[in-house]
Amino acid sequence: MKRPTIIDIAREVGVSKAAVSYALNGRGGVSARTRQRILEVAAEMGWRASSAARALSSDRAASVGIVLARSPEVLHTEPFFMQMVAGLERTLSEHGVSLQLALATDTATELATYQHWWAERRVDGVVVTDLRVSDPRPRLLRELGTPTVYFGIAHPMPGSSVLRGNEHDVARTALAHLAQLGHRRIGHVQGPRDLQHTVRREEALREAAEEFDGVVLSQASGGYTEEGGVRATRQLLAARDRPTAIVYDNDVMAVAAVASADDLGVRVPADLSVVAWDDSMLCRVVRPAVTAFAHGVAQDAATAALMLLELVETGAVEDRELSPRRLVSRASTAAPGSQQNDNGEN
Amino acid sequence: MKRPTIIDIAREVGVSKAAVSYALNGRGGVSARTRQRILEVAAEMGWRASSAARALSSDRAASVGIVLARSPEVLHTEPFFMQMVAGLERTLSEHGVSLQLALATDTATELATYQHWWAERRVDGVVVTDLRVSDPRPRLLRELGTPTVYFGIAHPMPGSSVLRGNEHDVARTALAHLAQLGHRRIGHVQGPRDLQHTVRREEALREAAEEFDGVVLSQASGGYTEEGGVRATRQLLAARDRPTAIVYDNDVMAVAAVASADDLGVRVPADLSVVAWDDSMLCRVVRPAVTAFAHGVAQDAATAALMLLELVETGAVEDRELSPRRLVSRASTAAPGSQQNDNGEN
Repeated sequence: MKRPTIIDIAREVGVSKAAVSYALNGRGGVSARTRQRILEVAAEMGWRASSAARALSSDRAASVGIVLARSPEVLHTEPFFMQMVAGLERTLSEHGVSLQLALATDTATELATYQHWWAERRVDGVVVTDLRVSDPRPRLLRELGTPTVYFGIAHPMPGSSVLRGNEHDVARTALAHLAQLGHRRIGHVQGPRDLQHTVRREEALREAAEEFDGVVLSQASGGYTEEGGVRATRQLLAARDRPTAIVYDNDVMAVAAVASADDLGVRVPADLSVVAWDDSMLCRVVRPAVTAFAHGVAQDAATAALMLLELVETGAVEDRELSPRRLVSRASTAAPGSQQNDNGEN
Repeated sequence: MKRPTIIDIAREVGVSKAAVSYALNGRGGVSARTRQRILEVAAEMGWRASSAARALSSDRAASVGIVLARSPEVLHTEPFFMQMVAGLERTLSEHGVSLQLALATDTATELATYQHWWAERRVDGVVVTDLRVSDPRPRLLRELGTPTVYFGIAHPMPGSSVLRGNEHDVARTALAHLAQLGHRRIGHVQGPRDLQHTVRREEALREAAEEFDGVVLSQASGGYTEEGGVRATRQLLAARDRPTAIVYDNDVMAVAAVASADDLGVRVPADLSVVAWDDSMLCRVVRPAVTAFAHGVAQDAATAALMLLELVETGAVEDRELSPRRLVSRASTAAPGSQQNDNGEN
């Protein structure tokens, strides 16, 4: 059973290819009775207009794209991306739209992907995440005219739509939690320095620190990986006024530090309290379990998908906010010098 | 800068649309000089034949599909799927082929997805994983004539290609490791019972058990989830002759059991040794760290992608084997009754 074509239907019904085309496209030139017979046979044979033919006629690909531009190492360990892809796909499939997925390890490849997708009409629009500090993508996508939803950026994008992240609430909540426990020297192990949200989180923590008397921040870059997280922790702990608590930009780095506490020569939380910006199973199963910010990635991705569908359809959609993150307090945070507590939730 | 069309090029050059079409398609009807000018302008404007137009003419979608048919919960926590998707995409993109991704939570949706993809010429072929015990997909895909590579199944599939898994080596290695430590009563916490590889792993463990004197197996189903893994462990431990070691069908269930050891009333490994069929960061960071089988999912996925491309191109490709799994021994396995060892690697 090959894909049925108009020719197959014509042969089966015993009419011309043109007659089948007229009937299927609802045009004249064929009798009502023959049209009826053609439609019946087409239905029996499982005929559908090919997406290629429909894309040519309607100028729609019925597909949207996302390029994931992180290292394979980060993609494999961070639960974030699978949750994002799952959330996008679920919503798109409910609307008969498919998801084109590409990975890119460098900017040139990523830009070329957007160009090809658009020039070849493979996608009707794209979702862009992980905006970089100096990022050529918005300009390219604006020039191409590709409908774009930006996921988790702070500022409006003229001509596109934005699902805004709010780093300030998270930063304030994290510092309030740690300051209340008695921490004043607080470290920040950051994600890749070329990402806008890395910079925004640093700014948000600096601003929030001003609200808490005597809080002093120190930063080191961990690049979102296990090794990077441990290395950055070691770097922060080597300072004369070493921090008594560290906020990590993702779950992977925070959990790697907790699992390497012996190597690092610290007890968690007695010598070092640990907070992760993202919650996941990793934070729950490590001991002590890691205090982290729960967030609805799949839900936010579903929102992004709906925004993009509306943008493609109508040409405009209002910016929205990512769902708020919620602090889940676990055993990795305690007063400096407190007794070690090896339980999970506290 | 909209997607340039033949009309845009015609306007820019000052010729008819037909002349542009002739020039771009390498047909006669236009002078050599005009053809040259048209090709230059088309290149400047970034013109490409749309994928829709090319798909109609070449009968190729330049796209392959995969449907991930697991619960959102499993998709979000298991690192397996992101590694699989990343491995497929990397290889496909090197060949100018894109990846269509869909999630399906029930069989009807999944079958409909394959039908639509094929009838609408969205894909040239598919990769199928997680074959079920009674699975309607092979028959459908055979009837449709969709080129298909089956990932990780045991038996050949007439008319399709198979990347074979080898459960027997893993089962034998796992039991040899545990028997050598002195374990005889060994539990098996299984994945979903409707998956072929769940059944194959049970059979492989049973066959391997016959090679080791006095080894007795017991089974419980954990469905690949954290909660399921803990529940199945509790069930196995409730038996009069409770196992002193358990093999888990994935990392998530094994790690959930280790993290819940206090609740389960056991010390790992003193009262219970733990082995996971899949290795991941979860196994490394939990304490004690979990003995597990390392495997090259991304590499195997790349192999599957190459096989599918060859199958689409030539109509046939030889079956191959998944890369072998390697036992990584960590602190979660020890002799029954041994002193607790809280280090990672041993």
